[in-house]
Amino acid sequence: MESRKGNMMSFRADIKVVDATIRDGGLCNNFEFTDEFVKELYKSNIKSGVDYMEFGYKASKNLFRESDFGKWKFCSEEDIRSIVGDNISDMKIAVMADVGRCDFRTDFLPKSESVIDMVRVACYIHQIPAAIEMIEYLHDLGYETSCNIMAISQANLNQVEEALSMLSECSVDIIYLVDSYGSLYPETAGALAKTYLEAAEKSGKKVGFHAHNNQNLAFANTIETLSYGVSYLDATAMGMGRGAGNCAMELLLGFLKNPKYSLYGLLEFIERYMVPLRQKGIVWGFDLQYMFTGQLNRHPREAISFTDEKRGDYCEFYKSLLENY
Amino acid sequence: MESRKGNMMSFRADIKVVDATIRDGGLCNNFEFTDEFVKELYKSNIKSGVDYMEFGYKASKNLFRESDFGKWKFCSEEDIRSIVGDNISDMKIAVMADVGRCDFRTDFLPKSESVIDMVRVACYIHQIPAAIEMIEYLHDLGYETSCNIMAISQANLNQVEEALSMLSECSVDIIYLVDSYGSLYPETAGALAKTYLEAAEKSGKKVGFHAHNNQNLAFANTIETLSYGVSYLDATAMGMGRGAGNCAMELLLGFLKNPKYSLYGLLEFIERYMVPLRQKGIVWGFDLQYMFTGQLNRHPREAISFTDEKRGDYCEFYKSLLENY
Repeated sequence: MESRKGNMMSFRADIKVVDATIRDGGLCNNFEFTDEFVKELYKSNIKSGVDYMEFGYKASKNLFRESDFGKWKFCSEEDIRSIVGDNISDMKIAVMADVGRCDFRTDFLPKSESVIDMVRVACYIHQIPAAIEMIEYLHDLGYETSCNIMAISQANLNQVEEALSMLSECSVDIIYLVDSYGSLYPETAGALAKTYLEAAEKSGKKVGFHAHNNQNLAFANTIETLSYGVSYLDATAMGMGRGAGNCAMELLLGFLKNPKYSLYGLLEFIERYMVPLRQKGIVWGFDLQYMFTGQLNRHPREAISFTDEKRGDYCEFYKSLLENY
Repeated sequence: MESRKGNMMSFRADIKVVDATIRDGGLCNNFEFTDEFVKELYKSNIKSGVDYMEFGYKASKNLFRESDFGKWKFCSEEDIRSIVGDNISDMKIAVMADVGRCDFRTDFLPKSESVIDMVRVACYIHQIPAAIEMIEYLHDLGYETSCNIMAISQANLNQVEEALSMLSECSVDIIYLVDSYGSLYPETAGALAKTYLEAAEKSGKKVGFHAHNNQNLAFANTIETLSYGVSYLDATAMGMGRGAGNCAMELLLGFLKNPKYSLYGLLEFIERYMVPLRQKGIVWGFDLQYMFTGQLNRHPREAISFTDEKRGDYCEFYKSLLENY
């Protein structure tokens, strides 16, 4: 059963840290970050040894009106280049594209002309065939690709195994375990990670983990799955992300033993940019309403509304969740 | 290596939930809770199925002036009885007594005359002989006793094994693993728990776990140690406790599968009493300054001062910690 890789004193060179602050955090402020914020985060991530920075979504401009969102909902080449130039750093640039909500055949340049390195294809488990179609197209363009299967806590084991088998045979580089509802415990996250790793290792792919903090377990689940061999680890500055947020980058960098990672650059960014963002009224992070939806393994949408309405009647809210179970 | 007890669907009847809100939370407000607060918490704990409620410390009135603290620093029989009467509930009453900071020979009645059920003897690892002297005295008076060895992350394994061997031969009922600095990870907490359990099971004793949330791991570490057989689990309402606080009772009750535990009574208490306490300006919970001391395996005193002074210069604070390493 137990099959931890590495130990608490050493480090694993296969670990990759992925900063998803602009993408998942963008869900808290409609992607309306200032250019200064994004540029300073980019510099801070490079200083801290972060391996990938995700800039946002490549959303369809046919489905979403550009004037309704900040620019990181769309991540044009020009907008990314206005921050990173040609990105001469060692850090790679990622964007996310949702199955069914992007125009992948028109919106991606060949990799040789693009500053983007990796495209993370997000889907629900019933959309795996559509995800694979996107992955093959983007792989042929020259991009590194991941498949991020969301809301995995609601899938059954047969579906998971079938999805992993299909992905094993396609060109995807990384298969992501995504706890969208923050309802996994270290024990259940660890068991799923082992299932993913078994399939991925056979086919030469890597496994990633993306946590949500509904039960204050985002960091714990991340280091638990890491200990079994998961190597792509998503985190965000101060855990900024939808609802209860994500694994906090500062917790993760403080934990990792590879001397390439350092906390100090991130702390400067947090002090100068993240704390003011929160003081301006952007809200994310652990709270009881998210704990309820996590414990009940449900989408956080009702908890997000509860937060937006600045409600504090936890008891009434909990009862209403139980009534609509 | 792996030796989890029970599984994610069933429950273990040996689990005991210990509410430490007044005792550890009292460190945040100088033990100045209103009688109404304590009485409502008592009723809420009974409704929620909590097994023990810790009322505070039995501190020496020779060492600490009564006028400097709220009454739960001293936990007189009369004060506890003013809340619980003869405590006709199934929930047991606990108090904590620190080695060297109590007058145990004069301040405890025989159990037959007392409303207290359990005395938790807190000590550092070099004080085990003094703790055992107290434990034998209190055991002879008829109390259930625990030994709570604090700051265990700073002890070495030889010390731990020697302490466990000494405690195995005394009359103590429960041996507590206490992560005072919040610096354990699930993997290290689990390994220590296994060491404790091995010694305790041989001598017919139980093991408890008391977490701090410096790295947002209080709940994760609690359920990890529980999974290996730890059965006494400390938690506090909204995690109220010194510095980064403790394992949140609402997370723990939401996790446990025994139908005797229920979340709703606690939620009413939180809404009516805990949220207003926080709004009044009582501060506890995860923040970067506590993360630093947890990551560095240090006493949180500097982080508590940083908080009290309402500082926000995380970078300067972190540098000062590294300079005094």
